[in-house]
Amino acid sequence: MSSTEIQEWKITERKWNKQSLGKDETLFTLANGHLGLRGDFDEPQPAFHRGTYINGFFEKEPIVYGEIAYGYAENHETILNLPDPKQVRLFVNNEEFRLDTVRILSYNRCLDMKEGLLVRNVEAMLPNGCRIGLKSRRLVSFVRTTIGALEYQCTLLDSPGGMPVSIRLESPLEALASNRKAEKDPRVGSKFSRHPYKVVLLEAHQDRSRLAVDTHKSALAAVLDLRYHLVPQNTLSLSFKASDESAQYSWAGTMNVGESFTFYKYFSYASGSSSEIEALKNQNESMLDAAFQAGFSVLVQEQHDFLKAFWAVADVQIEGDPEIQQAIRFNIFHILQSSGRDGKTSIAAKGLTGEGYEGHYFWDTEIYVCPLFTYTQPEIARSLLEYRYSILDRARKRAQVMAEKGALFPWRTIDGEETSAYYPAGTAQYHINADIVYAMEKYCQASGDRQFLFHKAADVAVETARLWLSLGHFGADGLFRIDCVTGPDEYTALVNNNAYTNLMARNNLRFALDTLGLMKQAAPADYKALLVRLNLDESELELWKRAAEAMYVPFDPKTGIYPQDDSFMAKEPWPFESTPRDKYPLLLHFHPLVIYRHQVLKQPDLVLAQFLLSEQFSLAEKIRNYRFYEKLTTGDSSLSHCIQSIMAAEIGDSEKAYDYFLKTVRMDLDDVHGNSSDGIHTAAMAGSWLSVIYGFAGFRDRRHVDSDICYSFNPRLPSQWKRLVFSLQLEGRTLRVDLGRYAVQYSLLRSTEQNSSDVPKPLTFLHRNQSITLYEGDAVTVSLKPVLRAVVFDLDGVITDTARLHYTAWKQLADEHGWIFDEKLNEALKGVSRLGSLEIILRHNSIRLSHQQKHELAERKNAYYMKLLDNLGPQDILSGIQNLLLELGKRGIKRIIASASRNAPRIIEQLGLGPVPGTYFEGIVNPDTVCCGKPDPELFLRATELAKVSPHDCIGIEDAQVGIDAIKAAGMKAIGIGHNLNGADIRIHDTSELSVELLERLIQDGGFRGKD
Amino acid sequence: MSSTEIQEWKITERKWNKQSLGKDETLFTLANGHLGLRGDFDEPQPAFHRGTYINGFFEKEPIVYGEIAYGYAENHETILNLPDPKQVRLFVNNEEFRLDTVRILSYNRCLDMKEGLLVRNVEAMLPNGCRIGLKSRRLVSFVRTTIGALEYQCTLLDSPGGMPVSIRLESPLEALASNRKAEKDPRVGSKFSRHPYKVVLLEAHQDRSRLAVDTHKSALAAVLDLRYHLVPQNTLSLSFKASDESAQYSWAGTMNVGESFTFYKYFSYASGSSSEIEALKNQNESMLDAAFQAGFSVLVQEQHDFLKAFWAVADVQIEGDPEIQQAIRFNIFHILQSSGRDGKTSIAAKGLTGEGYEGHYFWDTEIYVCPLFTYTQPEIARSLLEYRYSILDRARKRAQVMAEKGALFPWRTIDGEETSAYYPAGTAQYHINADIVYAMEKYCQASGDRQFLFHKAADVAVETARLWLSLGHFGADGLFRIDCVTGPDEYTALVNNNAYTNLMARNNLRFALDTLGLMKQAAPADYKALLVRLNLDESELELWKRAAEAMYVPFDPKTGIYPQDDSFMAKEPWPFESTPRDKYPLLLHFHPLVIYRHQVLKQPDLVLAQFLLSEQFSLAEKIRNYRFYEKLTTGDSSLSHCIQSIMAAEIGDSEKAYDYFLKTVRMDLDDVHGNSSDGIHTAAMAGSWLSVIYGFAGFRDRRHVDSDICYSFNPRLPSQWKRLVFSLQLEGRTLRVDLGRYAVQYSLLRSTEQNSSDVPKPLTFLHRNQSITLYEGDAVTVSLKPVLRAVVFDLDGVITDTARLHYTAWKQLADEHGWIFDEKLNEALKGVSRLGSLEIILRHNSIRLSHQQKHELAERKNAYYMKLLDNLGPQDILSGIQNLLLELGKRGIKRIIASASRNAPRIIEQLGLGPVPGTYFEGIVNPDTVCCGKPDPELFLRATELAKVSPHDCIGIEDAQVGIDAIKAAGMKAIGIGHNLNGADIRIHDTSELSVELLERLIQDGGFRGKD
Repeated sequence: MSSTEIQEWKITERKWNKQSLGKDETLFTLANGHLGLRGDFDEPQPAFHRGTYINGFFEKEPIVYGEIAYGYAENHETILNLPDPKQVRLFVNNEEFRLDTVRILSYNRCLDMKEGLLVRNVEAMLPNGCRIGLKSRRLVSFVRTTIGALEYQCTLLDSPGGMPVSIRLESPLEALASNRKAEKDPRVGSKFSRHPYKVVLLEAHQDRSRLAVDTHKSALAAVLDLRYHLVPQNTLSLSFKASDESAQYSWAGTMNVGESFTFYKYFSYASGSSSEIEALKNQNESMLDAAFQAGFSVLVQEQHDFLKAFWAVADVQIEGDPEIQQAIRFNIFHILQSSGRDGKTSIAAKGLTGEGYEGHYFWDTEIYVCPLFTYTQPEIARSLLEYRYSILDRARKRAQVMAEKGALFPWRTIDGEETSAYYPAGTAQYHINADIVYAMEKYCQASGDRQFLFHKAADVAVETARLWLSLGHFGADGLFRIDCVTGPDEYTALVNNNAYTNLMARNNLRFALDTLGLMKQAAPADYKALLVRLNLDESELELWKRAAEAMYVPFDPKTGIYPQDDSFMAKEPWPFESTPRDKYPLLLHFHPLVIYRHQVLKQPDLVLAQFLLSEQFSLAEKIRNYRFYEKLTTGDSSLSHCIQSIMAAEIGDSEKAYDYFLKTVRMDLDDVHGNSSDGIHTAAMAGSWLSVIYGFAGFRDRRHVDSDICYSFNPRLPSQWKRLVFSLQLEGRTLRVDLGRYAVQYSLLRSTEQNSSDVPKPLTFLHRNQSITLYEGDAVTVSLKPVLRAVVFDLDGVITDTARLHYTAWKQLADEHGWIFDEKLNEALKGVSRLGSLEIILRHNSIRLSHQQKHELAERKNAYYMKLLDNLGPQDILSGIQNLLLELGKRGIKRIIASASRNAPRIIEQLGLGPVPGTYFEGIVNPDTVCCGKPDPELFLRATELAKVSPHDCIGIEDAQVGIDAIKAAGMKAIGIGHNLNGADIRIHDTSELSVELLERLIQDGGFRGKD
Repeated sequence: MSSTEIQEWKITERKWNKQSLGKDETLFTLANGHLGLRGDFDEPQPAFHRGTYINGFFEKEPIVYGEIAYGYAENHETILNLPDPKQVRLFVNNEEFRLDTVRILSYNRCLDMKEGLLVRNVEAMLPNGCRIGLKSRRLVSFVRTTIGALEYQCTLLDSPGGMPVSIRLESPLEALASNRKAEKDPRVGSKFSRHPYKVVLLEAHQDRSRLAVDTHKSALAAVLDLRYHLVPQNTLSLSFKASDESAQYSWAGTMNVGESFTFYKYFSYASGSSSEIEALKNQNESMLDAAFQAGFSVLVQEQHDFLKAFWAVADVQIEGDPEIQQAIRFNIFHILQSSGRDGKTSIAAKGLTGEGYEGHYFWDTEIYVCPLFTYTQPEIARSLLEYRYSILDRARKRAQVMAEKGALFPWRTIDGEETSAYYPAGTAQYHINADIVYAMEKYCQASGDRQFLFHKAADVAVETARLWLSLGHFGADGLFRIDCVTGPDEYTALVNNNAYTNLMARNNLRFALDTLGLMKQAAPADYKALLVRLNLDESELELWKRAAEAMYVPFDPKTGIYPQDDSFMAKEPWPFESTPRDKYPLLLHFHPLVIYRHQVLKQPDLVLAQFLLSEQFSLAEKIRNYRFYEKLTTGDSSLSHCIQSIMAAEIGDSEKAYDYFLKTVRMDLDDVHGNSSDGIHTAAMAGSWLSVIYGFAGFRDRRHVDSDICYSFNPRLPSQWKRLVFSLQLEGRTLRVDLGRYAVQYSLLRSTEQNSSDVPKPLTFLHRNQSITLYEGDAVTVSLKPVLRAVVFDLDGVITDTARLHYTAWKQLADEHGWIFDEKLNEALKGVSRLGSLEIILRHNSIRLSHQQKHELAERKNAYYMKLLDNLGPQDILSGIQNLLLELGKRGIKRIIASASRNAPRIIEQLGLGPVPGTYFEGIVNPDTVCCGKPDPELFLRATELAKVSPHDCIGIEDAQVGIDAIKAAGMKAIGIGHNLNGADIRIHDTSELSVELLERLIQDGGFRGKD
């Protein structure tokens, strides 16, 4: 937003801009989860698209298909733009005030996120020479969900010759509002074949008016009541009239220079089923009257109080970057504004700011938005999840249509009916069922809400578990497979065994089993009732258990990659080099058949799974898979970047982490995708919160199998920031995290509403690998400075020079076969496994051998080598190493060997440095436990696991480039011995240069590059 | 058709039936490939749907999608029902003649397939007591493509009191005809948002009228000219009038009992582009005038002459089943009526008999219909293929939209534009490109038409070869893969490496290469012109060659099955047991997602590939794959049965072959699918011809790599038939095949239009494995009686009793491990491979071992066994065997060993029956060359290949049930030695009962079952 200034709590516009009108209307939207008013001006013109929405208020329209098939979604559902209650028209000397015709003398419009108000101050000269001042304040009440109000103050500042002027203020109410015609293409134009609702009532009285509308097909009614109030009361005289389609109020009179008046409009917008319209009218009238009685200033005060309480928990403070500070608050504020809180509605993809995605609810709510509320406003999280429970019966019916058991939740919907008109990227996204259950699991864990767990989450978990069992099947190999699905990445569709889906389905099954297990033990009556209610036999549970245990997750042991699905690795790579920038997003420029048959991603869903099910993957796997999929990802989905930011942070790539975060956090403020005029991107907004909390603060909330601790932090403050402060609600307590550059403080706040009878219960969590326990009122500060805790040594060329012996052994083998092999080629073998080395030599000599033959040759070389080893002894320890090992040992710094060589234990023994663990070493990584060799970081990460320390606190010492690469990929400091080693933090010529002091300095100061 | 009688050349209706009105209108359609008139009555009522169609005359309408994406087909194309030129209305004493109100005294309606006429004779009493006789004849001229004519004769037979009556004959022409509203479902209702054409001209003159219409969007115009003629001329007086929407002619007067008149209507219906309408009008008028001058009887004579020539080549005579005889002629006749012959049109799925499938052309033409014309009317085949050439430019454009190179033909179309609104079963069926090329290859081979080959087929082959190269890719393993396609079987979609597609694509590439190779050598100038025209570089050819050579075809070596695609074998089997009959066809009762994720077929496309590319598969592979896929096939596609019939015939399952044939051959006559009222099933009709020629006559037309001979026959006359006679056009000659129960006669007819300068060229083809060469005028008769040519022996239990030794060896191994093993379990090992036997024992003992361990144990058992073999000698030959072998040898009957044992050669040596080939045996099948053991027939079929004889002429001798099963599956006679052997043709107790006489008797008489 070019003309807004950066303020921490405000979005302020100093100049209105025709070009950005649509986007600004979106940004300045006021809403409360029920009612949303786009930020169009008080006056009807100029406007991009005036919008008034009620969450979940929509019309159905039959979907027309080019070719229909059984079970296709039957209806479109589209959120309706409703009659606009807020507009006013001002005429001075019969000339209308319009921002696009007046000369603006001063202008200020501000969305105040602390106060929940949209405030505008304008001073302007009309073409007829009258100068007026307008001050308006607008609100949509967080406290009274149907209520909105406008304060509109007008002052005549000057007039031609200082003469009195005629003034007319109009408050029009047009009953037939229209949705935007979304697309240029006539084939996808307006979905409605007729106006989507009918006006059933339109009344105008002296000081109030009323409108009621009713949809044709979805049987929803909305009632709008309005009350008007002018101060001072008798300045202008009122006239009003109503027709079938509008109610017009008009106050007219004369005004002298310096005089002013203030116009108040209060309105209440209720909705419900058409059959309840009478009750709705009564309730709405009382709601409005109560608000009117309270008056504008009370509404303002309520708004302030509500937000004060909200921000006390939900605020995220960022020091060091005001733009980011503003953006993250803006995002949190809009998420709050967008979220249904009545258990019957959820969060539309565009919130209540526009009609994009037709007001539908997707999986975005559960995977992207719910965590924010789960950890800051658990009651909103519960409400969102109750919405899903409320459509469980619909999901059961949908499962039947789809020939499945249990419940199948719709991919996109408002009222629970599947409305996706393209099933390969709709119904086929079965994963939404597991996503919903995942969010419920998270909410129940963080809130401890057993009521919800036993009575609602359990039902959903059971019915979705049933779905998975009927959707998948046990293959001939006994593994449980799920075929013909689409994962979150919509650039492949209808695949078998999408890894994300299968992993999340397994989680779904396990959660169902765990929940029922817990109920059986903790609430046997509830458990029995559930068995009856769901007609559930315990033999079914056995089947779920079998399926969960046998769940097939594609994994390629050669590369250590989890393929996105069964066929992904064999697909043709997308020709990124020959795809010009203007061909993105691909989906707008290539037929689905073209996209689907290539290795190309809209978002990396396997990486998402590694985030959501963090505990099931090693860091090495996360690094490897993140890197692999990043290269194939277009990021054409707005859901992609926040997850990539989080995982980049986890794997220690702080630059990427921040880059991706920047693409997410100001997506709408800066209109990154160019479509903010259609509404905000709620998932990306919530995603920016995820990036901060899960990415930069390194929060994780998944319990490891072998641990009782659910929560952990591994902070990685971006170098651009000074400080990050936020709070999380954990099992009813508030944990405040204050993260600085060099230290982090964790405080468990005192509950304000302490239940005195409760025994104080501590909260335990991990900071990196360190367990911290806090009681209420406690705080603990932990230094973030790295401390040298372990040194990881390569063997060959670092501890001893077996490289020579290897060379001799390979040479002997090569000579026997007449292969070319020399010292130069030998360089390429450094750090490479035995079989890998053989393959390098064979490739160099263009020789093809069978698997069997290769193994035999590798064995033979090893025999030669073993023979050479017999002569190895303490005299072969490289200079300075023995002393370094002893010094490190004295200081309690762990010493680990990470070598690709299977002979490492034997060599250590021969050198007299054994046994292990012992005087010289705490451990040797067994290369057989490692999937991928260097430059993959797995060997080194395994070493840090052996040492039980964080990679930040480790140094690796290597003499090979692949080793240095592996150390850096592991997030450790690297010391390189020898020449031409790129990326080492320190380079030395010789092991004699190594000393504990050098290592300590490197950890503390970050190292320096060697001379060559 | 309940009320039609079976006549060989006629379809006759003795009673009209309200229930079958729609179907009968379809069956009685007259058409000539250009103009089609449904068989509705001469009078407008009663009617199911009156239809008048011009091939390729259609209107476009934008497709509406629920959700659109880039590159989707843009328009529907729908063949138009045009104004009906044929109807007449008759009023007697002002009462209208309608078949549903009169009392019918006699009725006869007949489609005469020899004459090309629809004839109706009715005598009826009107409610007012007038009795009249009506005789009408109708034709659509095969000779004059735009011309149709009606003769309508009316006689007053009686009237109340014998009084004269008033007569009025009307000939109405309604300008605005309508298509049927196809579906009940409103979402798929009429595709037209307005009437699809406008009337541009409607004129009525004394004796002629004219109508011209023009479509809105597809820019096609049609002109209809009509001329009327009444005999005797002045009986009735004419009046006529024309309005904007109709032209009415009326002849009125009085008539006495016994008097009659005849009304003639001649019409010409031409079509072309809107811009040519003036020329069209002139041409059409001349066409009509010429027909009118010729008169009705000349038109009738022309029709007769045309069909006489047609049937002389195209007729298929079947003796022994009049229903089938009638049906096959009916099918051939309708195919002729349906086929465009102008190079600009093809064959709609419903011909010109209805609006089903919107008049679109599919792959059906090339794969199902073309062969009929290629071998009986090559000029029609050429015309159909020229249509494809005519849309090549469109196909090039479509390829561009789809980001591919070359040309991509539309899945369904009229004018060449892709119109499939569901791409997974539309554009994704890339195989259509290879299908078109396949049909061109077949046509060019059979006709020797190098003009077409070098100038049209070559271009299509090049552009489609380019498509395959850009669509597929070379995988990491170097194999060429084609991902994300749908094969002919639409019950799986968007799969990787559909075997049918890859096989046919390979054929496409090879044909392109062969054609260019031939051109380069035989027509270098044409070749150079092509390189320039298509901007073709010879390096491209290298790439095609590489792709063809490296084409990946899924194959499962464990089962010997060619999986339909990469993921097919791992899918969940369809629950056939729990699917009630009324849930078929599945596509009307299950969502595509449900169908796609299961192992279930609409039609077995791998089996189709094994038919089309017959030379690339062994008989054993065909048997195995046919059986495997048959179990998974619903036959929900009308294209399925004829192919299953052909392949059942090839593998020797004559019952299935006939069953499937019956489902195809009378599909429309008996309204098997219940939808013949929508039009005929052209592909199934042509498929019935394929079933006769390729199935029962066993015709094949694919050259083997190692042979120069293109054509072969392997006749298998159904036991229900006495005789089958048909002719094929082969390279300009006519080969007549006269197939009886016991012999077949092949005659090469003398050309009527012999080019005297030609050196007579013989025709060589195979009868089974026997090569036959005929000169024109030659005939040869071959006996079909089986002759004993080879005996195939199992080893263990037939030649010698090594079963004992095996038992001892297994027992030794089992005892060492403490496994249960006894004689009963040993029975299960008979005929089973070594590893297979071990697995049976392990399974019995519930023991799991690694692959490695199993191999070791199998080796150990073999070592024990080999040791036992050392003692084997001539004394161990079973009784009677040595003598039998010698006797067979004397008579030149081959003797082959087919044993799963790798020790067979050694045993034969030990027994003194070696060496092989030698005194006792001509061959031993090497089990390592066989993919599947018994009961798969492969071992025995390999034996017949070694012996170079047909399985019909072979006997197999076995002592194990799996062996008997294998022999029978191979199509051989089986002798079983021992008890409880089901399926053996003869069972004996002991080898001493074997004799040459017994074997000869078995081959000649078919054998008898043993006593137990």
